Amino acid sequence: MVEFKAESEWIGNGTARIKIRKFNIDVTSPLEISDPDKAIAPEEVFPGVLASCILTTFLYLKDRMNIHLEKWSSNVEASLDVTQKEGFQYISIHVHIFIKVPQNEKDKIPKIIDLSHKYCPISKAIKGNVNELVDFEFID
Amino acid sequence: MVEFKAESEWIGNGTARIKIRKFNIDVTSPLEISDPDKAIAPEEVFPGVLASCILTTFLYLKDRMNIHLEKWSSNVEASLDVTQKEGFQYISIHVHIFIKVPQNEKDKIPKIIDLSHKYCPISKAIKGNVNELVDFEFID
Repeated sequence: MVEFKAESEWIGNGTARIKIRKFNIDVTSPLEISDPDKAIAPEEVFPGVLASCILTTFLYLKDRMNIHLEKWSSNVEASLDVTQKEGFQYISIHVHIFIKVPQNEKDKIPKIIDLSHKYCPISKAIKGNVNELVDFEFID
Repeated sequence: MVEFKAESEWIGNGTARIKIRKFNIDVTSPLEISDPDKAIAPEEVFPGVLASCILTTFLYLKDRMNIHLEKWSSNVEASLDVTQKEGFQYISIHVHIFIKVPQNEKDKIPKIIDLSHKYCPISKAIKGNVNELVDFEFID
């Protein structure tokens, strides 16, 4: 078993500071964000972290499967039900990946992306509760 | 339904850049982090985001329940099973809160923290898959 630690502290004005060692990430309730250029909400950081986890899992697997990754970017869209009295609820999260690899390695990609999705610990943590869709397209 | 969007891009060296509007958060696979002062992993950002979500949910509820929050900090510890071939897996996440409120408002706090835990959308997303414990102590 491995332990990962973080801290979260109230710094005023509806904002929480996440602290991991020397790194700070400030997040604000979406209900409090009046200027979207000045703050981000935990509800939008979470899908971003999920997408990054699929990517770092892929980076681990690609070395073992001899893939020469050239580019990877992804868009993630999370749909939340905000109509319930008992708080927001994620309904679905869609991660769409744009990937570039050499032509002769393309055949392996569907399998490795599928494994990256399954092996990512954040995907496992939401399994059955949130409809997570991961798909991809090749880019030049 | 509300949509939250983010992006995640490979920027080399085992690192993913999470982009939310003008904000960037760089995360690196824990297996690639040689100097913990220089990088953070998605696996440790996730528990931090969860703890911040409980806090921002509390900030929403406190106004409706007439609580005068003076201090809130929290430690979060996530235990991951790293022994399986199919990737890491969160087993438990423990959020311990240090809270300061006026003496005559302390009675309400257990109920509001319990609601903050239940209403946080990230807690809902992991319910049944990860053993999430949220507890607290009063500080001066």
